[in-house]
Amino acid sequence: MKALKNDVLLRALLKKPVDYTPVWLMRQAGRYLPEYRALRKKTGDFLSLCKDKSLACEVALQPLKRFNLDAAILFSDILTIPDAMGLGLFFETGEGPRFKHPIRTAADINALPMLNVNQDLSYVLEAVRLTRNELNGSVPLIGFSGSPWTLATYMIEGGSSRDFRYTKEMLYQQPEILHQLLQYLTDIIVDYLNAQIKNGAQIIQIFDTWGGILSFESYPLFSLQYIKNIMSRLMTSSESLPVPVILFSRQSAQLLDMMALSGATGIGLDWTFPIQKAYHQIGKHVALQGNIDPAVLYGSNQVIQQEVTKLLHNYYTASGIKTGYVFNLGHGVPQYVNPDKVRLLIDTVHEQSVHFNIR
Amino acid sequence: MKALKNDVLLRALLKKPVDYTPVWLMRQAGRYLPEYRALRKKTGDFLSLCKDKSLACEVALQPLKRFNLDAAILFSDILTIPDAMGLGLFFETGEGPRFKHPIRTAADINALPMLNVNQDLSYVLEAVRLTRNELNGSVPLIGFSGSPWTLATYMIEGGSSRDFRYTKEMLYQQPEILHQLLQYLTDIIVDYLNAQIKNGAQIIQIFDTWGGILSFESYPLFSLQYIKNIMSRLMTSSESLPVPVILFSRQSAQLLDMMALSGATGIGLDWTFPIQKAYHQIGKHVALQGNIDPAVLYGSNQVIQQEVTKLLHNYYTASGIKTGYVFNLGHGVPQYVNPDKVRLLIDTVHEQSVHFNIR
Repeated sequence: MKALKNDVLLRALLKKPVDYTPVWLMRQAGRYLPEYRALRKKTGDFLSLCKDKSLACEVALQPLKRFNLDAAILFSDILTIPDAMGLGLFFETGEGPRFKHPIRTAADINALPMLNVNQDLSYVLEAVRLTRNELNGSVPLIGFSGSPWTLATYMIEGGSSRDFRYTKEMLYQQPEILHQLLQYLTDIIVDYLNAQIKNGAQIIQIFDTWGGILSFESYPLFSLQYIKNIMSRLMTSSESLPVPVILFSRQSAQLLDMMALSGATGIGLDWTFPIQKAYHQIGKHVALQGNIDPAVLYGSNQVIQQEVTKLLHNYYTASGIKTGYVFNLGHGVPQYVNPDKVRLLIDTVHEQSVHFNIR
Repeated sequence: MKALKNDVLLRALLKKPVDYTPVWLMRQAGRYLPEYRALRKKTGDFLSLCKDKSLACEVALQPLKRFNLDAAILFSDILTIPDAMGLGLFFETGEGPRFKHPIRTAADINALPMLNVNQDLSYVLEAVRLTRNELNGSVPLIGFSGSPWTLATYMIEGGSSRDFRYTKEMLYQQPEILHQLLQYLTDIIVDYLNAQIKNGAQIIQIFDTWGGILSFESYPLFSLQYIKNIMSRLMTSSESLPVPVILFSRQSAQLLDMMALSGATGIGLDWTFPIQKAYHQIGKHVALQGNIDPAVLYGSNQVIQQEVTKLLHNYYTASGIKTGYVFNLGHGVPQYVNPDKVRLLIDTVHEQSVHFNIR
C-alpha cells in the first residue's frame, strides 16, 4: 500500500509537530450531501450501501472529493456486528435503527453465534480494503466499532432508547449475564478491529456513545474495562505502524479522567465540555478531538468562523503545545446542513490554525 | 395554614440539623402506582387530571398514603405554561408531549399572548391550595416550573427531541429572538412560581432538564442567566418563611460550578455524577439532592439497600456535615417499577441515615 501523503492527523494524534490542525467530521459522508442522497435514491436503503463494497467506498470518498479533509472514515455502521449475529437490523424512517430480535435473557445470550469476522463481516473488510486502495495514500483511513456497552444497549433495547430500561434492568438484576454479553462482544470487536487494521485501517475510533448514561460507579465496570481490554489487544498496522485509537463518548464530563487512562491515543469530546478544561484535566495523557456544537453549522458564515477561531484559541492557548489536537464536531454532521457551511468550517480550521504558531 | 409537623426537608435544604435524611422522589405520583392507573382509567388523560384540582390533589397525595415521604409535590406538568399560551399540548402514547403549534419564527414569538397566571393557570394554583390544605401540615408541598430554556426547547421543537434541531438553529441563526422568547418565559415563570408560593408551595424546584445539551459557553447565556433572574425575583412564603429553590438538571457535570452560583438553595443531580465529588466541588455553597440511578429500583432488595447505603456513605463521609442532603433519584420514578421497591428505598434511607450520626 502507498505511503501516506497527508499524515497530519496521525501526527497530531501522536503529538508530533504539525503544520496545521487536521480535520475530519463524524458523519462526513451522509445525508447532508446531495450526491449521497442521489446514490441512495438509485440504490436503496442505508444497509444496502454498507453491504456493497463499491458503493460503500464511493460514499466514503464523496466528502473527500468536495472538501479538504485530512482523513476518510469507513462508510459503515456500528450495528453491523449485531446484524451479523442475526438480530435482524432494520431502519425505520425517523426512528433510527431497530432489531427484530432483541436480546433480553440468559438464553438469548447463550444462543448468540460465534462470529468469524472474516466471513460474517467480509463486506466491511472488503470496503476497508477498497477504500484504502482508492485513497491511494492521500489521507489516512479511519476504521471504527461501537464499544461493547454501546452495542449491548442497542441489542438489549432492540434499538435506540430514551431510558435504556431493559439494559438497566439487566444491569441491576442480572449483572453476570450482562458481563457475559459484554465479554462476548469484546472478543468479537477485537477480531473486527484487528481485521479492519489488517485490511488497511490506519486509525481506529471506538464509539462509546452511551457510556455517559451509566452511573459513575457502573461506567468502569460495564463499559471502560471492556474498552481497555480491546485497546490492549489491538495490533499494529500491516506496515508495523502504530494505530492510534480515539475513544469517543457523549455527555462524559464526569468520566474524562477514567477515559484518559483507557489506553486511548485520543479522546473525542462532545460539545458540552470546554476543550481548555479538558486539556488541563487529561491533555498530558491523550490527544483531544472535537468538539464544536454540530448545530453551529446552522449559523451564518460569521458565526461558524467565530466559533472555529474560539475553539482553536481555547485549545492552543490552554495547551501551550502546538499539536495533540484534532478538529471535529462534538457529534455527527446534522442531516439538514448546507454542504457549503461544512466547506467553510473545514477551510476555516485550516486557515486559522496556522495563526496559532503551530510550528 | 397549619404549621409544619415534618420540616426535615426544609431543614436539610437550609443546612439546619436533621435527625435523618429526608426523601422525596421525582414522579413519586404517577403511572407506577396502581391507584394512579385506576384513576386515569376512570377519568381520562393526563392533562385532564392536571386540570381538575380535586383529582390533581388526590394523585399528589397517593404516594404519601403509601410511603413515608418527607414532601408532597404538586401534581402537574412543566408544559402547563405553553399549553396556556395556546400551543395545543397533547400526549401521544409512547411519544411524550407534543404541541400542535410549535414556535419557530419571530412572528410566532411576537404573537405569543401575555399570560395572567392567576387566570390562565388558575387550575394549577387551585391544585396547589387544595393539596397544601389537604396535607394539613404533615409535610411540605413542593411547587415547580420548567426553566425558560427547557420550556423553549419544547415550544420550538413541538415536543421532545433528540437533536434539538430547531432550537439550535434559532440559537445560532437568530439568538436575539431566542433571547426574546426566553425573557418572555422568564417573566411568566416568575409570576407562576410566586403565585404557587402565595397559594401554599413551601419549596420550589426548577427543572432545567435540557440545560445540559447546551455548549459550555451557551449555557450561562441561554439558560443560567434567566434562571438567576427568576431566583432573584421569588418571594418568601405567605408565612414570611424562606422558600428554598432546588435547581435540577441532567447531564450537568460540566455545569455544576455555575449552577451552584445561581442563587439556588439546593442542586438536584442526575445519577451520572458522584455525590462525594459534587460535595467537594459545590457543597459549601448549596445543599445537594439526588442521585441514585432510577433503574436501581429494578434491582433486588439487596441491591437497593446496598446502593442506598453506599450513596448515604458517600455523601456523609465526603461532607463531614450532618445535613445539607436530600435523598432523591437522579430522575423520575420509572413507569414499570414495583411500588414495594419504592417503599423499600424510602424506608432504607430513613433507617440507614440515622447511622451516619446525623446529629
